[in-house]
Amino acid sequence: MGKIGKEFMEKTQYRYLDRSDQSMGYPNPDLELGAEEKDKVIDLPLPADIKVENIDLRRAIEKRTSVRNYSSEPLSLEELSYLLWCTQGVKEVVRTAATFRTVPSAGARHALETYILANNVKGLERGLYRFLPIEHKLVEINTEKDIATKIRRGCLDQAFVTTSAATFIWTAVPYRMTWRYGQRGYRYLHLDAGHVCQNLYLSAESVNCGVCAIAAFLDEEMNPVMGIDGENEFVIYVATVGKK
Amino acid sequence: MGKIGKEFMEKTQYRYLDRSDQSMGYPNPDLELGAEEKDKVIDLPLPADIKVENIDLRRAIEKRTSVRNYSSEPLSLEELSYLLWCTQGVKEVVRTAATFRTVPSAGARHALETYILANNVKGLERGLYRFLPIEHKLVEINTEKDIATKIRRGCLDQAFVTTSAATFIWTAVPYRMTWRYGQRGYRYLHLDAGHVCQNLYLSAESVNCGVCAIAAFLDEEMNPVMGIDGENEFVIYVATVGKK
Repeated sequence: MGKIGKEFMEKTQYRYLDRSDQSMGYPNPDLELGAEEKDKVIDLPLPADIKVENIDLRRAIEKRTSVRNYSSEPLSLEELSYLLWCTQGVKEVVRTAATFRTVPSAGARHALETYILANNVKGLERGLYRFLPIEHKLVEINTEKDIATKIRRGCLDQAFVTTSAATFIWTAVPYRMTWRYGQRGYRYLHLDAGHVCQNLYLSAESVNCGVCAIAAFLDEEMNPVMGIDGENEFVIYVATVGKK
Repeated sequence: MGKIGKEFMEKTQYRYLDRSDQSMGYPNPDLELGAEEKDKVIDLPLPADIKVENIDLRRAIEKRTSVRNYSSEPLSLEELSYLLWCTQGVKEVVRTAATFRTVPSAGARHALETYILANNVKGLERGLYRFLPIEHKLVEINTEKDIATKIRRGCLDQAFVTTSAATFIWTAVPYRMTWRYGQRGYRYLHLDAGHVCQNLYLSAESVNCGVCAIAAFLDEEMNPVMGIDGENEFVIYVATVGKK
């Protein structure tokens, strides 16, 4: 495919961008995918109630390494809640127009969604869930028996996708970003996913977990398995988490 | 420019990638840009000797916010060294083939370079420098009087680019990444830049600094000002740092 990367960087220069939908008065897209009446929503321990070990920031940064082997010890729902808080937690909803979160995002657009493949989380049936950042809850997406195997295959069959306690799968909802920034927003989606994943690496240290980020996945397998169309929502980054 | 973002995501699927240069036996590109004999190289306080305030990771994550207003207090060279260590510090050089750093990178490729626009750093002449991560030193790039103004203009004239104590400008050297991953590597460059910037946000808290990330810059202005060609090396992300 030649030079698509170079072409992407060139054509997302400001001078080539179309007028944004925001500047043309189109409405601000929803701040999160949310849940429907029929969905099964699961409460999570609230961030304010979660106690984790104090850990020095510098120590967390220096200790961090990618961990692919995990013990069989499960992640507690409280620990999962903490990791979700540190990676996408909503600190403030600004007049329904934007959210301020525990990570930065271009223009506070926060165009990512977090899915959790629960392999070994105490109190959570195995399966795929989506995080509701504003409500700080989970919504059940898919608890079919083979969902984990399908996701692992989509990640080039890397075993630790299913031997982890939980695998985070971040998707992008590009219009939430391109509404303001146009096609240049595709750069920002990836930058933002990097912020989020770094916080997962670091916050995992507080709960004695290791993390391994995965950017090598088969888009054309992952997106259908996740139940998303790959265009209005697509998988952008993956990371496994488990007890050391 | 229609749908270049969507096109980029599609054409960087595995099935469309050419065989990688690595798999065809091309040599591993250099791990960093390095310095030449003629260059002025500046020592930095070594990470092991740097003492910073202990700060709880969770507190750093929860406190983080984008800060655009800075006091006139300078950054010390030790503090700058600490921030460089936390964002791109080399923990280990693996047989000249890769580096392990304080941030993760796809395949440990670490295809980013860090430039520092020093506006108000004690002991450092105003100007543009590049970090040598393996040596943990700086190399002087440009101390012409108008370099800061030019960089600010390249960042859409956002004032805090020059009112910061230091502005970090990360560039990507794409071949260091595409050598292994082909055009899909352009996704990874951005993910990696996100990791790095997040560590800057957090580690800045240890030295009482605030940070503001900038992804809105004029590529066609910034790259020439930085003295890079925009193809083999291009600006990927920017962040300002200064005392609160």
